[in-house]
Amino acid sequence: MADQHRDLDDLIDALRVRPDEAVDLRERPTDADFGMDKEAALARLADTRTAIDLLQQRLYAEGTRSVLLVVQAMDAAGKDGTIRNVLTGLNPAGIHVTSFKAPGGPEVQHDYLWRVHQAVPRRGEIGVFNRSHYEDVLVVRVKRFVPETVWRRRYEHIRHFEQLLTDEGTTVVKVFLHVSKDEQARRFQERLDDPEKRWKFRAGDLDDRALWDDFQAAYTEAIERTTTKDCPWYVVPADSNSRRNMAVGEILRRTLERLDPRIPDPEEGLDGVKVV
Amino acid sequence: MADQHRDLDDLIDALRVRPDEAVDLRERPTDADFGMDKEAALARLADTRTAIDLLQQRLYAEGTRSVLLVVQAMDAAGKDGTIRNVLTGLNPAGIHVTSFKAPGGPEVQHDYLWRVHQAVPRRGEIGVFNRSHYEDVLVVRVKRFVPETVWRRRYEHIRHFEQLLTDEGTTVVKVFLHVSKDEQARRFQERLDDPEKRWKFRAGDLDDRALWDDFQAAYTEAIERTTTKDCPWYVVPADSNSRRNMAVGEILRRTLERLDPRIPDPEEGLDGVKVV
Repeated sequence: MADQHRDLDDLIDALRVRPDEAVDLRERPTDADFGMDKEAALARLADTRTAIDLLQQRLYAEGTRSVLLVVQAMDAAGKDGTIRNVLTGLNPAGIHVTSFKAPGGPEVQHDYLWRVHQAVPRRGEIGVFNRSHYEDVLVVRVKRFVPETVWRRRYEHIRHFEQLLTDEGTTVVKVFLHVSKDEQARRFQERLDDPEKRWKFRAGDLDDRALWDDFQAAYTEAIERTTTKDCPWYVVPADSNSRRNMAVGEILRRTLERLDPRIPDPEEGLDGVKVV
Repeated sequence: MADQHRDLDDLIDALRVRPDEAVDLRERPTDADFGMDKEAALARLADTRTAIDLLQQRLYAEGTRSVLLVVQAMDAAGKDGTIRNVLTGLNPAGIHVTSFKAPGGPEVQHDYLWRVHQAVPRRGEIGVFNRSHYEDVLVVRVKRFVPETVWRRRYEHIRHFEQLLTDEGTTVVKVFLHVSKDEQARRFQERLDDPEKRWKFRAGDLDDRALWDDFQAAYTEAIERTTTKDCPWYVVPADSNSRRNMAVGEILRRTLERLDPRIPDPEEGLDGVKVV
């Protein structure tokens, strides 16, 4: 059992992208079983959620630090499902999920990090971004919403912004849910063919699929240029939902364990107090 | 079983404060079993959470309306525990809990509803306020932070504000967790005597306890003056944690059921589309 856990540690750690490491997404697996079948992955995630729950209670009680989990992926890779499965069962009072849509209104009247900064977690919270500021170097690049000179300098903005968060008590960890093009097709088709799921499908999803290679190139460069020692990217195989969820749970748990949050000391002078 | 449910409907409905109804908190029960033992209440809440989960998925998919649950109570009545127990197990992506502390910084440089308005749920979300704008007619009144002329006109502000939310798609429901003074003493003493819980206790908690009658009077008037047909208050017996949580779950579920959220229709023109 101890050996198994060490093996899993190594497998999870292998998903992390080191600074200065070249990323070739075609070489990175989209399917991996981590030595577990589906049932084992579900059981492992259930244990992980229990551990995260305890760590979150301590983080909340401590009240001085926070964690930000950024979730990015191609369509149908499972951003919503990952967030639901990893976080359901935790106390919603300590979790703040923000789903970023295309910006509008006052959001576009400010720099692209303005709305993101407003959404970072409070002290004691686990914040989760479903999409994020990375869209400003992904879809914005691929669809040519701004010139290259504009998006290219954003990698540095983002590194600096995340370093600020880190220095001021927010630990940032980023996961790219890596799905294969074939698996995306299968999932799109399933949405189309199932009357209960068809409302989730937009014709525009196929336009983005046609730009698959451009998006993969944009992800590659975004990950390479913004993975740091403090704020690492993990490329998580996403063709198997159960293993994908298990792996993201592991990453979040390890992040919290490294923080090792502590219950604060009680006020002085409470010994022997009787309530009347 | 059908009879039991009708009975429970009636018991929950009896907690609701009608417009123009006089409230005497000493006459309202702090302990009620709703005809259930603890195990039955826990089982009932588990079923309720499953129902809320389904309704929340639909609310999120529908994406046009939202629900705001306001939770107010004396210290140790169980605001945190209620929120944790009623909402844990739901998808945190669809829930936004806001815990209001004493205002500071830019919050005090605006009217008292400014920060509250910023925290209302997005369309598709269930928002929960742990404390709320009601503190501005409760602690603010009891501790004399502002003159009576100032807090007294706030009942009308609050009614108007909540009517705005209602008219624009946010259903507001408010629960007062009604704990007895004896039970508060028991819970405070437990926090003091348990080294694991003592950090939750503040010496200031006893100062507020000394003002018990003033707080009860302030709650009475706040509830009477702001309970409306659209935005009702429920006075929930809170001496039993399991029944308190069960009852708040019932109130939230009924609120969502009355909204009856629906999955949206799919885009036109998707028949027979094949993903390549």
